[in-house]
Amino acid sequence: MKFIHTADWHLGKLVHGVYMTAEQREVLRQFVEIVEQEKPDAVVIAGDLYDRSVPPTEAVELLNEILFKINVELKTPIVAIAGNHDSAERLSFGASWFQHSGFYLKGKLDQDFAPVSIKGVNFYCIPYAEPGVVRELLGDDSIQSHQEAMKAIIGKIEEEMNKEEINVFVGHAFVLGGQTSDSERTLSVGGSGCVSIDLFAPFHYTALGHLHSPDAIRHETVRYSGSLLKYSFSEAKQRKSISIVEMKEGGEVTIEERTLIPKRDMREIEGTLEELLDPSRVETEQAEDYLKVTLLDKGALIDPMSKLRQVYPNVLHLDRKIELIDQKKKQNYTSVRDEKKNELDLFSDFYTQMTTDSFTSEKKDIMENIIQGVKLEVEQK
Amino acid sequence: MKFIHTADWHLGKLVHGVYMTAEQREVLRQFVEIVEQEKPDAVVIAGDLYDRSVPPTEAVELLNEILFKINVELKTPIVAIAGNHDSAERLSFGASWFQHSGFYLKGKLDQDFAPVSIKGVNFYCIPYAEPGVVRELLGDDSIQSHQEAMKAIIGKIEEEMNKEEINVFVGHAFVLGGQTSDSERTLSVGGSGCVSIDLFAPFHYTALGHLHSPDAIRHETVRYSGSLLKYSFSEAKQRKSISIVEMKEGGEVTIEERTLIPKRDMREIEGTLEELLDPSRVETEQAEDYLKVTLLDKGALIDPMSKLRQVYPNVLHLDRKIELIDQKKKQNYTSVRDEKKNELDLFSDFYTQMTTDSFTSEKKDIMENIIQGVKLEVEQK
Repeated sequence: MKFIHTADWHLGKLVHGVYMTAEQREVLRQFVEIVEQEKPDAVVIAGDLYDRSVPPTEAVELLNEILFKINVELKTPIVAIAGNHDSAERLSFGASWFQHSGFYLKGKLDQDFAPVSIKGVNFYCIPYAEPGVVRELLGDDSIQSHQEAMKAIIGKIEEEMNKEEINVFVGHAFVLGGQTSDSERTLSVGGSGCVSIDLFAPFHYTALGHLHSPDAIRHETVRYSGSLLKYSFSEAKQRKSISIVEMKEGGEVTIEERTLIPKRDMREIEGTLEELLDPSRVETEQAEDYLKVTLLDKGALIDPMSKLRQVYPNVLHLDRKIELIDQKKKQNYTSVRDEKKNELDLFSDFYTQMTTDSFTSEKKDIMENIIQGVKLEVEQK
Repeated sequence: MKFIHTADWHLGKLVHGVYMTAEQREVLRQFVEIVEQEKPDAVVIAGDLYDRSVPPTEAVELLNEILFKINVELKTPIVAIAGNHDSAERLSFGASWFQHSGFYLKGKLDQDFAPVSIKGVNFYCIPYAEPGVVRELLGDDSIQSHQEAMKAIIGKIEEEMNKEEINVFVGHAFVLGGQTSDSERTLSVGGSGCVSIDLFAPFHYTALGHLHSPDAIRHETVRYSGSLLKYSFSEAKQRKSISIVEMKEGGEVTIEERTLIPKRDMREIEGTLEELLDPSRVETEQAEDYLKVTLLDKGALIDPMSKLRQVYPNVLHLDRKIELIDQKKKQNYTSVRDEKKNELDLFSDFYTQMTTDSFTSEKKDIMENIIQGVKLEVEQK
């Protein structure tokens, strides 16, 4: 039995104010091609189909179109769950109809832990859920963390599970462990949000979504497929792929990864403005990529973004790396990532990421008033 | 062939800050009962299934539940179109799957004007569309009004329509004409938004949605079913029903109306505060209705809303009718409907209608700043 494991499509995603819909459409076209070639027995999507609970209508139409092609036109069963970015309730609309054609969509966690069985393989589908939701659902007050919630859910599954059969877990969670999880990751993602990899031991394969890199953990049978595309510059060096998983008799698993190639890559480049604009050095084929540019120039530059965009039309972010003698002279457009930001700065970042407008001083004044108003109200309570 | 004609469910509707979901659930329970008793060959919903393009999740779940009951459990075909309150794209998700069980959902107008045929009756389903959308879709620059758009669409339908068969139009539009349309209505709704009733002459029956009263027009075969519930006090005196339509051989139509009874009615009452609170006069069975109260007292009253709500918990709106000797002494809480309101007043009304919070002076200051900011920006442009 062969299925494709994918996750984290994040349809409707905006990256630095740019909708990724065209890129998503392109890689999903490739995805459909792979389904046509491979003729898998199922496609498994482990959560975050959309980027937000109310995605833009273009994303809704794209998801509808792609899933219809796979499920109805190519007659391929689909197993999908909601991730933390999806609205469980909104995503669930129509799910009871979809089953008739073998599209099993689980938006909201409920008491029904029975698996979806396809060609002798049982898929246990557990959408993302906060510990509080699981606590209430199972009536177990001891559940406080994601770890405890997942343990309780898997306990429930095991009560009815036939261990002689081939069992696959489909989930959307922050799983740690395996051969990776270097100190940095443990530090940055550690805590109550994490779930230990050992919990998934009862399953022959665990198809995860949530972390965007297929290398997030290294384990033979507990795996992230990785996201459809690079969705931030921190993912610039990650490879993006889908996994073709074959479940053999007796539970042996073989995995093949297939790379998806976006029309425009997401990359980080650096150099002086002159170097970057030098025609002999521009890789024209890649000039349309989404870029984060770090300028190494030392002096003042006049409107470097406009100059860069004449050559690289999709520069999304511009940083300057300046080794200053006096740190206090640090310029405005130096990265402020490590500085402590106030509410207004945070909103300003959010605004410019989510829209294509600039955050004018007029808008700033309005926002400042609102923030102060809210603070005042909070203080008065 | 017998079908039920309904429209304007407006799931997710807020009336004066109160969600109507519980009331909607109750009348939809009655609706399902009627479907069980009548065993119609189809249920036709002529638009505005939701109250807004992004309805609350409770509304999404309620619609899913009711349509599944009717379509899959009771095996009754459903014909539904989007109204102006629905998001055509969002509502369309899954529509291609739903067809398999005879649920025909048309969210977005497209070039396909072929009817849905059920037991020998052809249903031409035309979701709400702005004239500009129809103009672009048909490539006809002369389309400027709803009248012209509808005329062009019906022209397209007639090109392929078999007039020997029984043909039903399902639409969501502002239709005028017939035996009613008194001067007041013509005055208030007239203009480019309207569509003439004569356009629907080619059809044996026209199932409309948009106007909330089944008496909005009086015509034997072009009809509004009316909304599911009373959705504003201007509808307090309207009757609410669904229509059971029987199409006989040769195109003869018989119609039976069935009333839906909400748990709480929506009514207007008036009297002095003392009269209204007099225990001997309170109709206890109806005390939980949604009320608009007009007080006839002449003097000052201390917190009349609190006193009224002790007896009538669901007072949504309070007016005072005072015949003043000096009009200038008109009190603050007299109806301000006829006065010219500024942006802040309009927002304040909106805020109190849409939330259950009061519009504090703190919030007022914030809003005033925003309004001034926007005005300034507009002036500068």
